[in-house]
Amino acid sequence: MKELNVAIVGTQFMGKAHSNAYSKVGDFFDLPAKPILKMACGVNEERLRQFANKFGWENTTTNWKKIIQRDDVDLIDISTPNDSHAPIAIAGAKAGKHIICEKPIARNVREARQMYEAAEEAGIAHAMIFNYRFVPAIALAKKMIDEGKIGKIHHFNAVYYQDWLIDPNFPMTWRHDAKASGSGAHGDMNAHTVDLARYLCGEIESVNGVEKNFVKNRPFSDGSGMGEVTTDDCSAFFAHFQNGALGVFQGTRFANGRKNYLRLEIFGSEGSLIFNLERLNELEYFNRNDDSDIQGFRNIIVTNSTHPYIGAWWPVGHIIGWEHTFIHEIKELVEAIEYKKPMIPSFWDGLKCQEVLDGVSNSARKGKWVNI
Amino acid sequence: MKELNVAIVGTQFMGKAHSNAYSKVGDFFDLPAKPILKMACGVNEERLRQFANKFGWENTTTNWKKIIQRDDVDLIDISTPNDSHAPIAIAGAKAGKHIICEKPIARNVREARQMYEAAEEAGIAHAMIFNYRFVPAIALAKKMIDEGKIGKIHHFNAVYYQDWLIDPNFPMTWRHDAKASGSGAHGDMNAHTVDLARYLCGEIESVNGVEKNFVKNRPFSDGSGMGEVTTDDCSAFFAHFQNGALGVFQGTRFANGRKNYLRLEIFGSEGSLIFNLERLNELEYFNRNDDSDIQGFRNIIVTNSTHPYIGAWWPVGHIIGWEHTFIHEIKELVEAIEYKKPMIPSFWDGLKCQEVLDGVSNSARKGKWVNI
Amino acid sequence: MKELNVAIVGTQFMGKAHSNAYSKVGDFFDLPAKPILKMACGVNEERLRQFANKFGWENTTTNWKKIIQRDDVDLIDISTPNDSHAPIAIAGAKAGKHIICEKPIARNVREARQMYEAAEEAGIAHAMIFNYRFVPAIALAKKMIDEGKIGKIHHFNAVYYQDWLIDPNFPMTWRHDAKASGSGAHGDMNAHTVDLARYLCGEIESVNGVEKNFVKNRPFSDGSGMGEVTTDDCSAFFAHFQNGALGVFQGTRFANGRKNYLRLEIFGSEGSLIFNLERLNELEYFNRNDDSDIQGFRNIIVTNSTHPYIGAWWPVGHIIGWEHTFIHEIKELVEAIEYKKPMIPSFWDGLKCQEVLDGVSNSARKGKWVNI
Amino acid sequence: MKELNVAIVGTQFMGKAHSNAYSKVGDFFDLPAKPILKMACGVNEERLRQFANKFGWENTTTNWKKIIQRDDVDLIDISTPNDSHAPIAIAGAKAGKHIICEKPIARNVREARQMYEAAEEAGIAHAMIFNYRFVPAIALAKKMIDEGKIGKIHHFNAVYYQDWLIDPNFPMTWRHDAKASGSGAHGDMNAHTVDLARYLCGEIESVNGVEKNFVKNRPFSDGSGMGEVTTDDCSAFFAHFQNGALGVFQGTRFANGRKNYLRLEIFGSEGSLIFNLERLNELEYFNRNDDSDIQGFRNIIVTNSTHPYIGAWWPVGHIIGWEHTFIHEIKELVEAIEYKKPMIPSFWDGLKCQEVLDGVSNSARKGKWVNI
Repeated sequence: MKELNVAIVGTQFMGKAHSNAYSKVGDFFDLPAKPILKMACGVNEERLRQFANKFGWENTTTNWKKIIQRDDVDLIDISTPNDSHAPIAIAGAKAGKHIICEKPIARNVREARQMYEAAEEAGIAHAMIFNYRFVPAIALAKKMIDEGKIGKIHHFNAVYYQDWLIDPNFPMTWRHDAKASGSGAHGDMNAHTVDLARYLCGEIESVNGVEKNFVKNRPFSDGSGMGEVTTDDCSAFFAHFQNGALGVFQGTRFANGRKNYLRLEIFGSEGSLIFNLERLNELEYFNRNDDSDIQGFRNIIVTNSTHPYIGAWWPVGHIIGWEHTFIHEIKELVEAIEYKKPMIPSFWDGLKCQEVLDGVSNSARKGKWVNI
Repeated sequence: MKELNVAIVGTQFMGKAHSNAYSKVGDFFDLPAKPILKMACGVNEERLRQFANKFGWENTTTNWKKIIQRDDVDLIDISTPNDSHAPIAIAGAKAGKHIICEKPIARNVREARQMYEAAEEAGIAHAMIFNYRFVPAIALAKKMIDEGKIGKIHHFNAVYYQDWLIDPNFPMTWRHDAKASGSGAHGDMNAHTVDLARYLCGEIESVNGVEKNFVKNRPFSDGSGMGEVTTDDCSAFFAHFQNGALGVFQGTRFANGRKNYLRLEIFGSEGSLIFNLERLNELEYFNRNDDSDIQGFRNIIVTNSTHPYIGAWWPVGHIIGWEHTFIHEIKELVEAIEYKKPMIPSFWDGLKCQEVLDGVSNSARKGKWVNI
Repeated sequence: MKELNVAIVGTQFMGKAHSNAYSKVGDFFDLPAKPILKMACGVNEERLRQFANKFGWENTTTNWKKIIQRDDVDLIDISTPNDSHAPIAIAGAKAGKHIICEKPIARNVREARQMYEAAEEAGIAHAMIFNYRFVPAIALAKKMIDEGKIGKIHHFNAVYYQDWLIDPNFPMTWRHDAKASGSGAHGDMNAHTVDLARYLCGEIESVNGVEKNFVKNRPFSDGSGMGEVTTDDCSAFFAHFQNGALGVFQGTRFANGRKNYLRLEIFGSEGSLIFNLERLNELEYFNRNDDSDIQGFRNIIVTNSTHPYIGAWWPVGHIIGWEHTFIHEIKELVEAIEYKKPMIPSFWDGLKCQEVLDGVSNSARKGKWVNI
Repeated sequence: MKELNVAIVGTQFMGKAHSNAYSKVGDFFDLPAKPILKMACGVNEERLRQFANKFGWENTTTNWKKIIQRDDVDLIDISTPNDSHAPIAIAGAKAGKHIICEKPIARNVREARQMYEAAEEAGIAHAMIFNYRFVPAIALAKKMIDEGKIGKIHHFNAVYYQDWLIDPNFPMTWRHDAKASGSGAHGDMNAHTVDLARYLCGEIESVNGVEKNFVKNRPFSDGSGMGEVTTDDCSAFFAHFQNGALGVFQGTRFANGRKNYLRLEIFGSEGSLIFNLERLNELEYFNRNDDSDIQGFRNIIVTNSTHPYIGAWWPVGHIIGWEHTFIHEIKELVEAIEYKKPMIPSFWDGLKCQEVLDGVSNSARKGKWVNI
């Protein structure tokens, strides 16, 4: 069987999730090529070694440029903090490697555009990890919307709630430093909801945002005093979509009790859809055309063998988890590479998402609407 | 407007709920006669006086036989402990009064049959307070079942959970004394679910039950020591229905955290219905004939003006409460009396329910199936 | 017992809800005066007559000025479209009548201020019908917030979703005419959530809003052609609170499947509260200080006898409905009048709410933040 | 690293789930030995080949006795229909192989006891696949019960609902043939709930059951006419536990709309626990000792790093799926084998579960209580 050699940069949370996807995807999907876990790159040698042993990465390096130089790497997976996305992706593209990159694509539109242009120029396959498109319930929602099941969309409301920053003693991380991350909750969380909005509802024309920071200073984890938080704790914005829908978005890390709660409420002229990431195997659907006395939101358990991606897994009612979204996306990427099909979501989608994110930040600074 | 003179026996929880129904029903429904709160009977004079003042009962007495003797009483409402149902109902019927009686109809089938026969012989209107039939969501369920929306019923599962007896220091009441009440959770709670079963699923052929008592002795509330609990704390049973369905029932006052949780799960060949009394404005409906990929339990908010009884109330989404069930039943009773229509549920339904209840107790004693 | 003579202006949905409250409040609460349904005023004589008969209003008139002139009216209840609130309230105040008025207080701040000043000058009791303050779960939330149970509030998110305007053939009403109503979903629905925000989270400093109209023209119900909709179908806004919280609000009549869905999500430093009007007997509460492994949103069934207002009603688990909120508020009003206590919410609250509402509309026109 | 050679018998649904567990467990847990997918055995050669390729089983055979004979097999995984459990397990034990077996252990107690005795005599490690013990929420429930969080258990109510047999044209399978399966829904579904009952609530003393078959004949899938269904479509029973709790159990494949819905309701003197397999990342907990006005069922999202097994996976709120339960159990088994600890659940648990299952069937035939 044909092989596809993968190198990964980043060994933490996302590195782990992606490693699992590469090693598992072939056990469940019939693929045109088998991903080979060729090389892993990380900054901490001990952690890198453990990581590589666990998931079976054949080689390791602490210098990502080594990856670029190798002939036996076909695909580079970028799972690092946001400030290194552009240099790695651009160098990789120039070396003719396919690239898949964690969201957000970069710290700002300028970097994103450079990445997109480099990738297009090189003619490589390029993919954004917008893994929530690959939740079966979301893929089903997309299909239902495309079929007209909820008609013309009036409202696209999205929240992404977490609560891990409420404690003011939670230490500084790269996510609190605008230089490393670009933004806080905004780029991290709204990147997901903006991408889902574009996927499900179309392009955004203009935005009006507000950002807020509840904790101004946090301790450094090494005990060396307090650092200044230069990123937002929460970010909310309104959006006008090209199709006439009104969007209301909110991402926050101060929603006590909500752990990883991404909720979509999509209200259309013929029906509605509700999704909650903490119950990602379910999709609520209201059909206005059901007989009026027996209408109601249906709770669809999205585990039928005919539901998107589910045929590869278990019988109906046997739920899958968060990690499966990566497996589904890697399946699409391997097919895109091998069949020379366009990959979606690509850096184009990363760039378009970043345009909205930057527009919101810009709008929040100005206190008024900004066109995208 | 024609008037219908009502006398009530019992001034506690149920007396209050019924008083509210008589005084309010005419504000919302067009009735052929107006209920007049003529006379209230209670044992405690002070409480009786307050009760009568609050709801506007014109006269009071501490002797229920006085009610029987009055010419200006048309309808007697029996809201007393179970052991007085039969004597009051039989005397009332003989005096030509219409009767409405709280559930369970009596302490046992023998009393129930005497009541039914006395009522029939007298030609009066007789009604059982099985008020949950008059929850709009239940009335809608009945309509849907009659229309075949869930097909042939395979399973009728009913629980009634409360938790007010868990504390072993909760004192003795008449409900703990088999002489006064006949049974405990069984007659009090299963009376409701058995009636709903008969209403929604049809007659029961045989039962197999188990009863349990977790607290054997409780203190008397006057401090005079401990009394022996001679009634069940919980009662569960299986039932074979005439239509081939299998029933599983459970009533308990030891379900910690459940306050007044009556849940029905009705599974049929074409669909299913789920009901929960703590959310009585909702009915969950699964339609097997919806397209398979977008099937799911629909949560119907039963507040459309076209839903049963709702037209008299508020706009859609403005929920009603538990007390409204009595108003709906009194509306039906007033119409039955004035239009000389049969009232349903009647003492017949009380008797049939009691046959099942007694059958279960009998079965629990014997440890095996009993035919009804 | 002392009597309090009430006159009502308006015989439709709200007239009905208020009538029920006046007639029922004394059956359940011990009041210092008994409300007498003295006079009802409406424009349609036939409907007025039926309305008065149903609820027992002693007299009727089609001219609200007749009410002002009567000596035997103590309290005027204004349940009319928004454009008549100010003239009736001001005239009533000048005549020394106590006034209770439906929300929003008026079409704009100018009218609201005139009403407030007239009422204060006259020294009457004045009340706003912000009935959702009197949902027991909301009153409990207020108590919990005041006790510090959720700490410092970071987020106050409120939506009010309905769906009755989605059909473009739904006819023009006074609510679609800015002259009569001031605004559309905004004044009707956001009035509620703004009041709850002020009640639970405090004053709002600045807002940034967006309004949208999905259907520009609707048919007149008399078949005389099409009218222009001059009010919003939905209105959303951000708010900065004085206490540092960030608010996100949205009211819409285009949320397919949501009938009367008002949801609050209040996230604080120590916990969170979630409320949904379609399940108004419940309150969700997250306590950050519970042991971390057994934390979770608690679903409190707000039907304990010790919960606000519930002692007057039924045993635990026996739910109440939407109409009860009016009964609770009338109870407070009767006590305020008789005990000469300040009534809350008063026209002051109506005015403060209107300042926010007008600020939002202003902000939506300008496309930027507006200070309140 | 030490290796543990595994052979599997059975290549269908369970074979797939177990293969995934062996191949993935080492990526997430630190194990004393690495499972090697040494040999797979199936009846259909083509399917076997594909199965082995997908998951990387090194060798294949269509004769399970070949597995017994190999020296390089340490652990045999039995994922076959119920009638072959005993012969394979007994032969394997005699050959000194460790054994893990799918539930139910066998067709009846006689077979189960032979298996248990053979395993004990051989001194091998023996395990039952009761994978729901290894749902983190269930493991947390166990911990909470052991800590006394819900006090003395009064009620243990368990249902297992599926709906895949409602269509009478669904063909005959080995599950409809008592010779191959022993029983229908009973052994398949109640095996899970009985095991969870023993795990969470302790041993069962006596049972009283009822079984029902709604479809008597089904077509053979090869078109060769109709076969007689000799197993139950549903089975319900009452149980008295040694600790005084009352159990109510029901397993059915005729619960329309329920796909894989296993619900536990455990009511104790100090609190309660509710679990639903279709939302297996959640556990509802009621604590009677919370302040009474702010009590309620808490929805615990069981995804903290400190929750059982979760530390190996993802950050809080990122849910896992059904398949993870097998990975957790295999982790326990590898440790038991390598550290020579007793494995729980073992064949002993399989035997004890079977005693209850057989007792229920026996009771259902007799129509009365049976002691275990």
